[in-house]
Amino acid sequence: MTDIKAVDAVIEERTDQNLEELARLCAQPSIAAQGLGMEPCAELVKEMLEARGFKVQILPTRGFPVVYAERGGRTDKTLLFYNHYDVQPPEPLELWETPPFEPTIRSGKMYARGVSDDKGHILCRLAAIDALMAVDGELPCSIKFIIEGEEEIGSVNLTPFIKDHTDLLKADACLWEFGYVNKDGVPIQYAGLRGICYVELSLRTASRDVHSGTGGSIFPNAAWRLTWALNTLKTPEEHIRIPGFYDKVVPPTERDLQLLEQLPDPSDEYMERYDLQGFIKGIEGGLELKREAIFTPTCTICGLTSGYQGPGSKTVLPAEASAKVDFRLIPNQDPQEVILLLRDHLDMEGYSDIEITFLGGEAPARTDLDDPFLQMVVESAREVYGVPMLIQPMSGGSGPNHAFIHILKVPVATAGVGYPDSRAHAPNENLVIDNFVAGVRHTARIMVNFGAG
Amino acid sequence: MTDIKAVDAVIEERTDQNLEELARLCAQPSIAAQGLGMEPCAELVKEMLEARGFKVQILPTRGFPVVYAERGGRTDKTLLFYNHYDVQPPEPLELWETPPFEPTIRSGKMYARGVSDDKGHILCRLAAIDALMAVDGELPCSIKFIIEGEEEIGSVNLTPFIKDHTDLLKADACLWEFGYVNKDGVPIQYAGLRGICYVELSLRTASRDVHSGTGGSIFPNAAWRLTWALNTLKTPEEHIRIPGFYDKVVPPTERDLQLLEQLPDPSDEYMERYDLQGFIKGIEGGLELKREAIFTPTCTICGLTSGYQGPGSKTVLPAEASAKVDFRLIPNQDPQEVILLLRDHLDMEGYSDIEITFLGGEAPARTDLDDPFLQMVVESAREVYGVPMLIQPMSGGSGPNHAFIHILKVPVATAGVGYPDSRAHAPNENLVIDNFVAGVRHTARIMVNFGAG
Repeated sequence: MTDIKAVDAVIEERTDQNLEELARLCAQPSIAAQGLGMEPCAELVKEMLEARGFKVQILPTRGFPVVYAERGGRTDKTLLFYNHYDVQPPEPLELWETPPFEPTIRSGKMYARGVSDDKGHILCRLAAIDALMAVDGELPCSIKFIIEGEEEIGSVNLTPFIKDHTDLLKADACLWEFGYVNKDGVPIQYAGLRGICYVELSLRTASRDVHSGTGGSIFPNAAWRLTWALNTLKTPEEHIRIPGFYDKVVPPTERDLQLLEQLPDPSDEYMERYDLQGFIKGIEGGLELKREAIFTPTCTICGLTSGYQGPGSKTVLPAEASAKVDFRLIPNQDPQEVILLLRDHLDMEGYSDIEITFLGGEAPARTDLDDPFLQMVVESAREVYGVPMLIQPMSGGSGPNHAFIHILKVPVATAGVGYPDSRAHAPNENLVIDNFVAGVRHTARIMVNFGAG
Repeated sequence: MTDIKAVDAVIEERTDQNLEELARLCAQPSIAAQGLGMEPCAELVKEMLEARGFKVQILPTRGFPVVYAERGGRTDKTLLFYNHYDVQPPEPLELWETPPFEPTIRSGKMYARGVSDDKGHILCRLAAIDALMAVDGELPCSIKFIIEGEEEIGSVNLTPFIKDHTDLLKADACLWEFGYVNKDGVPIQYAGLRGICYVELSLRTASRDVHSGTGGSIFPNAAWRLTWALNTLKTPEEHIRIPGFYDKVVPPTERDLQLLEQLPDPSDEYMERYDLQGFIKGIEGGLELKREAIFTPTCTICGLTSGYQGPGSKTVLPAEASAKVDFRLIPNQDPQEVILLLRDHLDMEGYSDIEITFLGGEAPARTDLDDPFLQMVVESAREVYGVPMLIQPMSGGSGPNHAFIHILKVPVATAGVGYPDSRAHAPNENLVIDNFVAGVRHTARIMVNFGAG
């Protein structure tokens, strides 16, 4: 039996060393959306895994490569860690208090792009492995890592990769790339993920921009056509107008709603953190907000671009316009089907000239709420956080869990180092060092209990 | 009597010298929208006028200064030249074949930002003055120049300036800052200008961007609110929905339509030059297109900005969004009134959170089609172009002619060096050197005939 107190002591003792290694990883940009620093980052992750005695391969995909690693342990029972080495673009740069790729510690937090999402989680797994090895000289179970490079751009090539490597990736359970404690310090178990379908809508109405005095009342305007087309996608009442879009949505069960009831109401926290005037659809908070946040599919404009965007005025009629749009999906919606429905809709509404570029998609998926692995991860939190995890039946966010649950056929559970103000995907992304230490301790317990179970 | 053939000979002889001086003026950036190079450009214009014996003052406004100059001539009859030394922003820079502020001559054209709009016209007036001085040793009439620095940003401060300087600017007629020959080489007289009201609409829905997985189905989205608000401004059928917007529009008279009938149909030229699939509102060409292009007020989206605009995807729910919108106005619409109507409309539609920033405006105005000065300018073209000017009752573009016609009470006529492919406001702005020479000859004749009349 592993002396878990000894493991905790090693984790505590090695905190500075772990943070130094995390800073090294965060200092290496790896922006998948911009193709920046991807190869060096994969190599660095490989080096870090090899230092722990893992057999590591950098395996090609149709996009950025996957870092795959494995190492045996006390049992053949295999735990698969899913993580990603890519990060979100750091823009807008001017809003960072310290540069995104110069990790900085202040007031008990480390600031850097990727420090939480997902490099902090990679280091969390590695630090747990180090501590267990230091105490036991071996791992309590077999471990495999799949660390991809395209999570932030929709993991487009991961599902085919998993299909091609089902034997290599064979495992008994999977620990997901993230985990959070809520504002009360209670860790949350996300028993599923919404899907996503991310597209760019773009059109060109002329070979070049036109003087608005010449063209304003006779020429087609790309910005106007885009505005009108977007307007057909969703009403101001938040109803998505694409025919068939809602057809496959499975509503939450009674048990889902009961679990949501047990979760704290995040509405005040949201209002304050983002300085909101209110929520949409007249939502005030409570169960209604928690249900809508998760069990409603979305159509979000993530970006708009057209014409002159500089200071002051330029009297130009834009020849080009584009929008980035992300749909969050609920079981059993499917991203490929959404693309087809969207194409049909735009054609029907007279916008055949609008091109749809698929920038990434993932089907939604959920782990059975009664799965023993999921329940073990929930219970393993008690010693670290004083309470077991609260189960959220699904996360509002997305990830490629569908392929793990439905192709590899492993239960997926979450545990990690994030918190509500991690600012993942935003300027000043940060990691609370205490949360990091707790996450490492939880991860070590998950491995021990998994090996023993 | 001026020997006009001798004047023509001097103009011909000095062409290279004139182009060198034009290149020098174009090499000096003067981007009002970005506050770039404005003071040095005003000083350079002053220097060029002083070199011609003008008494020059750089007079302050609430924005960029006005260059004012005057010189007496054979008679006290005074011709006022209105021009502007500011230029449009050069972006997008990557579409320029040679850098916008490095004037380059190729295939009989000079390329540079401002080479046509409006520095080519400033040099056109100066070159005509030089030739007349060289031949006669004096000017055929008194000349005043008002050369402003804010034409490209809506001449916001010009009307108050004119109100404050009515005595200084006292004149008998005004030659406007531009003029064009059409694709057949026939010069066009623009007997009026549409007005303009240029605004930025902007809103903020949160203190910072939100992860789209967290916020997509519960948080307000600035990009969506902007899209929906814009959609309330104009229908896809091009009807502007702001209540009261069309109330003061004066429809074209029979004479206006007859003049339009005489103008060539630009539809094929437009289709080809801009590679269009067609015009809006089912317009096919002919009188319908000519009438719509000029006698319909517009609501043009000039630019859209929100959220992530880089390559690939970023799953962000934007906290801010903005649009640049320009309204072209027809007599007797008024830009200040449009702002009030727009504010009321947005409030009524539930968009009180959208801020309106007024970026410039000018009331529309027209010169009497029978005015003797206008008719003289039209007729003076015959010797240069082989035909008199064709009169277009109003230009689709805008400018501050309202203050000249209604405050200084002078007739305004146009003559100049532009042509349909000048690419004013677009990359690769250019000037055909032959058009420049013809414009100088026409300007010299206007001065001679004006002095003699």
